[in-house]
Amino acid sequence: MGGEGFQMHRLAQRLFPICRSITGDGVRASLRILQEILQEDGIDLKMHEIPSGEKCFDWTIPEEWNINDAYILDQAGKKIVNFKNNNLHVVSYSEPVDKILTLQELDEHLYSRPDLPDAIPYVTSYYRRHWGFCLSHEQRCSLPDGQYRAVIDSTLAPGSLTYADLIIPGSTNREVMISTYVCHPSMANNELSGPVVATYLAKWLSSRSDRRYTYRFVFVPETIGSIAYVSRHLLQLKQHVIAGFNVTCVGDERTYSYLPSRLGRTLSDRVALHVLRHRAPGFKAYSFLDRGSDERQYCAPGVDLPIASVMRSKYAAYPEYHTSKDDLTFVTPAGLQGGYEMLKECLEVIEAEATYRSTVLCEPQLGKRGLYSSLGTRDIEKSVLMRTDVLCYCDGDHSLLDIADILGVPQKDLRSFATELLDHGLIEFCEERGGRGQGL
Amino acid sequence: MGGEGFQMHRLAQRLFPICRSITGDGVRASLRILQEILQEDGIDLKMHEIPSGEKCFDWTIPEEWNINDAYILDQAGKKIVNFKNNNLHVVSYSEPVDKILTLQELDEHLYSRPDLPDAIPYVTSYYRRHWGFCLSHEQRCSLPDGQYRAVIDSTLAPGSLTYADLIIPGSTNREVMISTYVCHPSMANNELSGPVVATYLAKWLSSRSDRRYTYRFVFVPETIGSIAYVSRHLLQLKQHVIAGFNVTCVGDERTYSYLPSRLGRTLSDRVALHVLRHRAPGFKAYSFLDRGSDERQYCAPGVDLPIASVMRSKYAAYPEYHTSKDDLTFVTPAGLQGGYEMLKECLEVIEAEATYRSTVLCEPQLGKRGLYSSLGTRDIEKSVLMRTDVLCYCDGDHSLLDIADILGVPQKDLRSFATELLDHGLIEFCEERGGRGQGL
Amino acid sequence: MGGEGFQMHRLAQRLFPICRSITGDGVRASLRILQEILQEDGIDLKMHEIPSGEKCFDWTIPEEWNINDAYILDQAGKKIVNFKNNNLHVVSYSEPVDKILTLQELDEHLYSRPDLPDAIPYVTSYYRRHWGFCLSHEQRCSLPDGQYRAVIDSTLAPGSLTYADLIIPGSTNREVMISTYVCHPSMANNELSGPVVATYLAKWLSSRSDRRYTYRFVFVPETIGSIAYVSRHLLQLKQHVIAGFNVTCVGDERTYSYLPSRLGRTLSDRVALHVLRHRAPGFKAYSFLDRGSDERQYCAPGVDLPIASVMRSKYAAYPEYHTSKDDLTFVTPAGLQGGYEMLKECLEVIEAEATYRSTVLCEPQLGKRGLYSSLGTRDIEKSVLMRTDVLCYCDGDHSLLDIADILGVPQKDLRSFATELLDHGLIEFCEERGGRGQGL
Repeated sequence: MGGEGFQMHRLAQRLFPICRSITGDGVRASLRILQEILQEDGIDLKMHEIPSGEKCFDWTIPEEWNINDAYILDQAGKKIVNFKNNNLHVVSYSEPVDKILTLQELDEHLYSRPDLPDAIPYVTSYYRRHWGFCLSHEQRCSLPDGQYRAVIDSTLAPGSLTYADLIIPGSTNREVMISTYVCHPSMANNELSGPVVATYLAKWLSSRSDRRYTYRFVFVPETIGSIAYVSRHLLQLKQHVIAGFNVTCVGDERTYSYLPSRLGRTLSDRVALHVLRHRAPGFKAYSFLDRGSDERQYCAPGVDLPIASVMRSKYAAYPEYHTSKDDLTFVTPAGLQGGYEMLKECLEVIEAEATYRSTVLCEPQLGKRGLYSSLGTRDIEKSVLMRTDVLCYCDGDHSLLDIADILGVPQKDLRSFATELLDHGLIEFCEERGGRGQGL
Repeated sequence: MGGEGFQMHRLAQRLFPICRSITGDGVRASLRILQEILQEDGIDLKMHEIPSGEKCFDWTIPEEWNINDAYILDQAGKKIVNFKNNNLHVVSYSEPVDKILTLQELDEHLYSRPDLPDAIPYVTSYYRRHWGFCLSHEQRCSLPDGQYRAVIDSTLAPGSLTYADLIIPGSTNREVMISTYVCHPSMANNELSGPVVATYLAKWLSSRSDRRYTYRFVFVPETIGSIAYVSRHLLQLKQHVIAGFNVTCVGDERTYSYLPSRLGRTLSDRVALHVLRHRAPGFKAYSFLDRGSDERQYCAPGVDLPIASVMRSKYAAYPEYHTSKDDLTFVTPAGLQGGYEMLKECLEVIEAEATYRSTVLCEPQLGKRGLYSSLGTRDIEKSVLMRTDVLCYCDGDHSLLDIADILGVPQKDLRSFATELLDHGLIEFCEERGGRGQGL
Repeated sequence: MGGEGFQMHRLAQRLFPICRSITGDGVRASLRILQEILQEDGIDLKMHEIPSGEKCFDWTIPEEWNINDAYILDQAGKKIVNFKNNNLHVVSYSEPVDKILTLQELDEHLYSRPDLPDAIPYVTSYYRRHWGFCLSHEQRCSLPDGQYRAVIDSTLAPGSLTYADLIIPGSTNREVMISTYVCHPSMANNELSGPVVATYLAKWLSSRSDRRYTYRFVFVPETIGSIAYVSRHLLQLKQHVIAGFNVTCVGDERTYSYLPSRLGRTLSDRVALHVLRHRAPGFKAYSFLDRGSDERQYCAPGVDLPIASVMRSKYAAYPEYHTSKDDLTFVTPAGLQGGYEMLKECLEVIEAEATYRSTVLCEPQLGKRGLYSSLGTRDIEKSVLMRTDVLCYCDGDHSLLDIADILGVPQKDLRSFATELLDHGLIEFCEERGGRGQGL
């Protein structure tokens, strides 16, 4: 396992206790930590604020929510539910409250999961004024009759929505976009795995000297954040983005998953499937009907950015999802490392993707260049055959990924052949083909 | 079961005894009964006559055939075969005859079915002068040697071929065409089920106030009638017909069947398969190579109208076919009701077929319109998800049927979502796409 | 079995002892024998010489190699390996040598096959100066220590490369190309089956009076010969060749095989698969990745001639390949006959391939032309149905091969229907469609 797994897990540990929501200081505090980590490599993560009330397509930036404390006191004055112990205890965007209630009255503001009796569920109420507490079903069932005091010390007021982005320039202005979200409180797979893996992908990319593409990383609150981001950058994104991934749920060890773009036919889809088939053949392929994250916005009709998802256990498809059990024991260094490497290879495939054309008619004489066995016997080495196979599909029509799929091998196994054939002048780059962004 | 089944069966009972052929008074009498039934709903079934000798493409309208009586007398003068008992006893288009013959001579004019020894077969000789009798194989085998008198009191003389059509106008001049045939004597599935179901479909359509398409119903003698009809209306049909069905064999209870258009790629094919897959998943799908009715003309090269067939037991695929056993015990009210409803749903799918385009970029905020749950919990209602699924494929490219197929549900389950989204201004109609005739 | 099998086997017997290589008098002697056989039918096989040193794309014609004798003498002066016994004993293109060596020194120039211990392997060293002997592994292991004398009486000197071609003209200048190779010494399936079957295909074609296509037969040394041929005729080939086959390995009795053109979508591919599916349903279908003969040149990017291979046991896929065991017991008259007939049928399918258009709208009245039963009973003859099926796909879009594939029958079963319908004026030829070269 590479060292990134441990580093990413440590970063997730720092971020874990912060109470994030779609707006507020929790988001800012989290992004500042990512800024610090990225600054180590000279990468400038820029934070942006959009004021409450601003229109973004069909939506309006909501009031900003912040919270100091929240608890339920029992008749004896004991804090039986305490936000300071676990920020999932409060329904996100709860309005301030300080009330004495009977158990029956209180119960209307309580949320638990009978099917997961020892877990605290995660509940939000962003767009309808409401307050509530989440607790384990076991605890809820054990509450005695009597009077309770419910206190939420929160503010809901005009402020702003915070997001961040960074650009790692390449030799062309065509872009690969990585989006992840920062709006969930203490949960690990469905939230923190995303920003930490994205952060380490940015660090790796900035260390590469030979980037062909420009990389755009976007850290936004889910849904409202990606809508706001698209509304502010639509033309730029439509013009330049040739591929991209929504990075979420990339930290557990159970499985790998793929969720396509809306029509499933983008370069990102092909690359994700290619990499997963070779590196994780048992991966689970979802339909776009199973979507649930920012691909809902990026792939909406008319937006239709080439964004697919390569995940480990997909949101809403593992029991711990949206509960206190989605924690940093479920997400592990090895799990994060796996998610990181799978996405890294996707980006490497995109960087290496190109279409070549043979420069000679008929087969070139490889032997005189030391690229073919001089003695004609029955057996030819496998690598020699693979070289001739690559060459014979360098026809200006098949990309390196197409050729890899014809040969049934990972694209990365063919890169050295392409380089070698280029070096010998036997193939040349072709102009772009089909908007896939090959060649230079 | 809807009441139409019984009404259709009663209508079939009225039509059953009439001796129809490809020309003659039997056709006229049958069409007049349909006229009467359609007139109840103010629908005007127009009858047309084409004189014998008129050229229709490669064919010529034959002489008109009429028959008063026909029988075989045995040596004792007893009517052992009697047209008045069953009009299948006479080979259709038999020329007049009155002859004394030996059994051996007579036998050359007898037709029976050894494989179905108690059934009277149905035989025709439209284009070669001939006469003959059909009888059960049992009876044929029991005929004693001796002299017989064969009498056919028929006329074959210049006259005309009769057909009928009706138009139910819609809000566009694009047409859906329903064709059925009226040329078989007393047989129920392969003949009467067609005109009676077509008649009740016309009655149902005329009762709808919101027809988008114009409906053309055609009642013709098979083959020569459809050829004549096409020859007189080719340009009109090619310009306007966007879908249609040949209605035949829709009255028994055994199964459902589908026979495609010649290339199998028309709207009618897609709709028929969609409806059958959801309503009758065990249906039998035939090839165009199994054709045998008027799709032979409507789908001929150069004609190529979008005509498919949705049937119950297909002609030539059930033992009773073309015999006296294809009667009104084989065809039942429930069987007719099933055929009627399957075709009705096909027409409803065509009426509802449209392509929409989302009016907002990214997802609209459904919550503020009461179309989404305000509380973010793990579970979202299925109907809410289906609404967002419809919305996300309203991209100006996928029709409602395409979306239904993506979602794996009947198109009818999506119509209320489309209406609701239209009402909220979240989607809009698109211009026609691919000649499918959507939008207005 | 047709008589050609025996004639082809006898011709192979004459050619077998000649020591062929990619240049030299062995090739010339072999081609002169083919010239003689073809002359019997008035076919003019033209021989051509390309001087050593001439450039052909990326290649240079090598020096010419000729050999008189070669042997290894043991210490007692006994010829233990003798070229005169089997010309496989010498590595092809061995430079002249006359040396005394120890067994250890000699061993570096010996080639044997441990996996096939009683076979003499076939080894070449065309483009690196080298000499060597091939012998059975059994013999090699039994060689005692001691001194040996290795003698190769060969010449490697400027000369020329020899190839031959012939043209059998048809009524159009569009061409079908048959290529085969003449550069292997005494081996039967992987060499002689090719030129002898090609020769007899030329004889058969020249006897046909009704050739639509012009046939180009090419006899070349493999690789360098086909490269040279393409370099001299590229424009002509690209303009005129509509289909073709590389004829190799068509003489044993084990199996049938197919190797596609590079993209697998040419007329040759369709025809080969069609014929093999009907005549040899258990045939083995290879991928272009399994290529190894002159399709490497003919199908190279930019050349992309429509050349596929229909073989019996494919080169490199049978144990005898490239050894002394690939002899005229492995290749038999029946094996050659099978290869010949399969290719003959491919050529017949290509000759008969055409696209027709119905001349009437709706179905024509076949009955009045005696092409349909006059009596309408339940059963229609199969051949009548097939006639109407052919007719209904004569739409100017489906070729006879397309129709055969729709009907699931060999194209040859439909030719008489097409002729008959043409004769009755019911269909007419269409202009070419999709470059397939139909019609006239």
